[in-house]
Amino acid sequence: MAELHGKMHKQETVCIFGTGDFGRSLGLRLLQSGYNVVYGSRDPKNSLLLPKGSKVMAHAAAAGEAHVIFVAVQREHYGFLSSLASDLEGKVLIDVSNNLRRGLYPESNAEYLSSLVPGVTVVKAFNTISAWALQSGGLDANRQVLICGDRADAKQQVVDIAQSLGFTVLDRGSIRAAAELEDLPLQLFPLWRLPFRIAICLTAFIFFYALTRDVIYERVTNGKDIAFRIMVSLANKVFPIVSLVMLSLCYLPGALAGFLQLYNGTKYRRFPDWLDRWMLCRKQLGLLALAFGFLHVLYTLVIPIRYYVRYRINVYTISLVKDNITYEFDNTAAWRYDSYYSMGILGFGLFVLLGITSLPSVSNSLNWREFSFVQSKLGYMTLLLCTFHTFLYGWDRFLKTSSYRWWMPQAYMLSLVVPCVVLILKLILIMPCVDRKVTRIRQGWERHSKTSSNCRDTKTNQPLMA
Amino acid sequence: MAELHGKMHKQETVCIFGTGDFGRSLGLRLLQSGYNVVYGSRDPKNSLLLPKGSKVMAHAAAAGEAHVIFVAVQREHYGFLSSLASDLEGKVLIDVSNNLRRGLYPESNAEYLSSLVPGVTVVKAFNTISAWALQSGGLDANRQVLICGDRADAKQQVVDIAQSLGFTVLDRGSIRAAAELEDLPLQLFPLWRLPFRIAICLTAFIFFYALTRDVIYERVTNGKDIAFRIMVSLANKVFPIVSLVMLSLCYLPGALAGFLQLYNGTKYRRFPDWLDRWMLCRKQLGLLALAFGFLHVLYTLVIPIRYYVRYRINVYTISLVKDNITYEFDNTAAWRYDSYYSMGILGFGLFVLLGITSLPSVSNSLNWREFSFVQSKLGYMTLLLCTFHTFLYGWDRFLKTSSYRWWMPQAYMLSLVVPCVVLILKLILIMPCVDRKVTRIRQGWERHSKTSSNCRDTKTNQPLMA
Amino acid sequence: MAELHGKMHKQETVCIFGTGDFGRSLGLRLLQSGYNVVYGSRDPKNSLLLPKGSKVMAHAAAAGEAHVIFVAVQREHYGFLSSLASDLEGKVLIDVSNNLRRGLYPESNAEYLSSLVPGVTVVKAFNTISAWALQSGGLDANRQVLICGDRADAKQQVVDIAQSLGFTVLDRGSIRAAAELEDLPLQLFPLWRLPFRIAICLTAFIFFYALTRDVIYERVTNGKDIAFRIMVSLANKVFPIVSLVMLSLCYLPGALAGFLQLYNGTKYRRFPDWLDRWMLCRKQLGLLALAFGFLHVLYTLVIPIRYYVRYRINVYTISLVKDNITYEFDNTAAWRYDSYYSMGILGFGLFVLLGITSLPSVSNSLNWREFSFVQSKLGYMTLLLCTFHTFLYGWDRFLKTSSYRWWMPQAYMLSLVVPCVVLILKLILIMPCVDRKVTRIRQGWERHSKTSSNCRDTKTNQPLMA
Repeated sequence: MAELHGKMHKQETVCIFGTGDFGRSLGLRLLQSGYNVVYGSRDPKNSLLLPKGSKVMAHAAAAGEAHVIFVAVQREHYGFLSSLASDLEGKVLIDVSNNLRRGLYPESNAEYLSSLVPGVTVVKAFNTISAWALQSGGLDANRQVLICGDRADAKQQVVDIAQSLGFTVLDRGSIRAAAELEDLPLQLFPLWRLPFRIAICLTAFIFFYALTRDVIYERVTNGKDIAFRIMVSLANKVFPIVSLVMLSLCYLPGALAGFLQLYNGTKYRRFPDWLDRWMLCRKQLGLLALAFGFLHVLYTLVIPIRYYVRYRINVYTISLVKDNITYEFDNTAAWRYDSYYSMGILGFGLFVLLGITSLPSVSNSLNWREFSFVQSKLGYMTLLLCTFHTFLYGWDRFLKTSSYRWWMPQAYMLSLVVPCVVLILKLILIMPCVDRKVTRIRQGWERHSKTSSNCRDTKTNQPLMA
Repeated sequence: MAELHGKMHKQETVCIFGTGDFGRSLGLRLLQSGYNVVYGSRDPKNSLLLPKGSKVMAHAAAAGEAHVIFVAVQREHYGFLSSLASDLEGKVLIDVSNNLRRGLYPESNAEYLSSLVPGVTVVKAFNTISAWALQSGGLDANRQVLICGDRADAKQQVVDIAQSLGFTVLDRGSIRAAAELEDLPLQLFPLWRLPFRIAICLTAFIFFYALTRDVIYERVTNGKDIAFRIMVSLANKVFPIVSLVMLSLCYLPGALAGFLQLYNGTKYRRFPDWLDRWMLCRKQLGLLALAFGFLHVLYTLVIPIRYYVRYRINVYTISLVKDNITYEFDNTAAWRYDSYYSMGILGFGLFVLLGITSLPSVSNSLNWREFSFVQSKLGYMTLLLCTFHTFLYGWDRFLKTSSYRWWMPQAYMLSLVVPCVVLILKLILIMPCVDRKVTRIRQGWERHSKTSSNCRDTKTNQPLMA
Repeated sequence: MAELHGKMHKQETVCIFGTGDFGRSLGLRLLQSGYNVVYGSRDPKNSLLLPKGSKVMAHAAAAGEAHVIFVAVQREHYGFLSSLASDLEGKVLIDVSNNLRRGLYPESNAEYLSSLVPGVTVVKAFNTISAWALQSGGLDANRQVLICGDRADAKQQVVDIAQSLGFTVLDRGSIRAAAELEDLPLQLFPLWRLPFRIAICLTAFIFFYALTRDVIYERVTNGKDIAFRIMVSLANKVFPIVSLVMLSLCYLPGALAGFLQLYNGTKYRRFPDWLDRWMLCRKQLGLLALAFGFLHVLYTLVIPIRYYVRYRINVYTISLVKDNITYEFDNTAAWRYDSYYSMGILGFGLFVLLGITSLPSVSNSLNWREFSFVQSKLGYMTLLLCTFHTFLYGWDRFLKTSSYRWWMPQAYMLSLVVPCVVLILKLILIMPCVDRKVTRIRQGWERHSKTSSNCRDTKTNQPLMA
């Protein structure tokens, strides 16, 4: 019987309306997986490039050959389907269409199709799979097919086909989810939007702040034009500051959430919306911070080959020779600068490690404990090293009045505010007495609860950076 | 009934001929997934290290226990199977074998097996899965089993087993595909071959060009031996040039394809073969360009610690002191060099981003729109930045006659030809009037078409760099 | 019938005991995949935040609704289940629980549950899947469900549910495997432990060695305090040495295994335990070596912006001017230093390539031949380049008596011992006469064998670095 089932299943005929790129790729894949494929075309004789082994006929005839029909036609051409209503009666229509832009139509393509041909069951599926993914056999391409539809039996048939084709399936519920599925291929980095905006605003602010304090001040006060510094010196002020602030913004919401849970005495109260949104984009904040940190490293390493720096060093050496000054070695400066570089290098090394573990294929191979060890413990260690690196950079500059031009402190001082806040909050949270309470709350304990909790673990804490 | 089916399925007995590494690993995995395993061995009493729970018996007896038999034996030893023909009558034989080299035999192992034992159905499967992948449970290892065979029912049984073992299956058609499947494990980076050859030829050409122009010219003209420059200075000329040229070669075919589609007035005409092959290896071209760019960055950053550079700077400083020359600060040079470094750093940063998004696990988590945004928009931005970086490096050198030794222009000038061509072609393609036409063509419009197109979208444009 | 089966399957009702994070996420996912979900709760009226579409009732009533019951309750609360024994009679209970620490209880949670409610079949499953992975739809999260249990039919039902939810399943055998499954989420980088310990011991040893030889020796002999060098100079001695030694430790076991196989005359004799353990963590050894190498690169590139280095160069230039010494260009030094940097850069470039190919998603897309080409051929090339880089660093220092302070040779000399041993062993193994023998052994040939081998290939050689 198992054999029989297999046999029948594999000789099933599937119909595809539409002979475009997607229809052709789909047909090829279906043929490879053992299905018979019949194309429905307006002009069967002129349908070129169709995969070998498939048949092509007029729509009505093709519909008669199969129970399941893929509609690989653009929405604008759906009209002809209503005239086929009697041929399609009782069939399962799979809507694979996408739109060119969001909000073009009031209802989703799948619902429109459903209203156009009343006697059919419409299942939305495969719209997130590209023709390319179908052709390349799924090795390099996303293998998850999202489906939705109103009838379980029709959906099951689509699930069977998708699994035969080597895809995994995720059911997203009734046909009302179709609008959401049709939006998915049109999304452009939705989770990266907020972090990007933060990064752009921060960059612009720090840039104009440093521009005013360094370049414009110099121009106004001493009449010197040092605008060329914008290209490297200023960039190398902006990038590390944005990187440090964004790294700390990536750990701030976790700390705030801890305090909120302490205040609420439970983890079962929803976080405010802004905190939820913030927590959802922590990974993106962290990765952007890493990108800025990477640029900072390159800008720093390029320093000694800059024309300006070589000029300065040369002039200094010459002045030492000419004025016959003995150059005293400053042991404290040696310690300070070397520690400064060392902290920076180690911090950057850990930061790169965090970035690598947030690659999907790496984070998938970690269990929860390993992942949270890396992202939380090593994450805070990175923040600590980078903050310390910045402190060593500043050293005693904050004491000198020359550091406050036009009452503006040096930009690096601004950059230390958020990291210090985060580190202090974290310090409070890991104090044994507080930590014990937070841990109990995260394991399900509630201050005002009548019933004892029976949650399993703390696994819903969203990953910190991945 | 569902329970019954489950029960039966799981107590199924599978036979394995061959007690080598693969046979043992396969048996272990089958046992773990609930199958009964019987080994067929020439010498059942001396079969060691077999997994616990399996049985081992003579080939004929083992064959009697199961309907499906894995033949985990090298092709040279297939001979004994013909003597078992009567025991094997009607069974499904799974050929898992590979060869040591290509082209050893006229026909595929699976077809040979099929001809050797006429009464059986041969299915080729599992040959791309290593014993290691079987042992490690599929987490770290490729989980796609490719199968082919002539009978759908036999294939379905293999599909069931593979899926029970946690693999996904891709059916590649009839047993004639076996030769292709047997070649897969013997392939050595087939898509990298063309890009590698291009890289090697380019590297050799630029190297000898720069060697002649710099080292040999100096030797012949001034009698000075500066051959030591080969190790770093010359390498740091060759690597960036190869990187830039290959990056532009990665975007050239896309631009050419656009013009070809404009010329043809349709996207349904096949591209010439060389263009197809070129487009298929764009990702590899881009990644090689990134590798060369990475070496260029390291070679550049190592400059200030080179003995030769320190010597030169020292000598220069000393000459300034001795000849009592005042060292004038050149504001234009400061702007120029800093812009040059800045463009290079930003270009490299974007390039690394392109590289990261072409990692399989990252590109799989992007939808089509995101992927094409990164690879196309950011890709051209990278090319633009890197080309500009090279222009800033050159500055006004191309005007000086000293730049043309033996009528050979500086190597960097050669490197600018291809990128400029690509950027100009792209500029034409994104002009509104042209862009509108290309977009319509890519959405399926045809100049000479009678029927309106009904393709779904432009998804068959092959990914640019992944 | 296929339709009917689909229909029935999808309207199946599943019961979940426990309304915590995991229970809620699981319920949501089950609903999305078309199951009916009934929660069993101690206090049905106060069960908040449950997914829409699910029902909640008292435990006994909920149990009556379904054949399969997820027990998403902490082990401490299992007590109430024994009172439900009659309601649960004949049901399948899925134990999804984990513990907070290892070794808390004598038997696994699943076995405890089994002993508590005798009439049920317990299947351990889903405990390695986090609530987060259930919510996020499996795209970013680990999709492998490990299960174990004593009855095949019950397991099959769990397999069906897991597959409907988009997970792949790996059966780990009888319920006795539950303890092992419950330990999995509590593991913290088990394969990284040994490499980490080696790295820490090596780092500590080289650090104290270099500290004594450089800093303490200087203090004792010349009374000079150069302790500031710890931060960068010393770090940049320790990191490259540890990196080189660990890289060679990653290739040593493979070479030893080759000699052992030659000595044994077969590959079917087990390796000693220490060698097995060593071979299993080669990838981790290699990646740690890469991390140390990365730090070495950054520490090296930061050299020219160090205060100490600038001071030294300045003082040297001034002394040249004052003492009116002509600075002779040393052609050999130019060759030597440039080759030294060039070898280092190329070695590091290859090393990064090895690291990238050991990313799961990259190594999965390689076939065995490609993988072993990269990890073995390119791996040895990397080792060769890095060893040569170190030799060039040393040059003729080992001849100078000043290099042996307190009879301690320079640290770099120590670092060359292991790589040289590995390279010599490899050189012996690839000599044609030896190589032929090893290849035959790895293809299954045995010196003292009566029967000819019939293994398929050499695929059980564990991947070298991935």
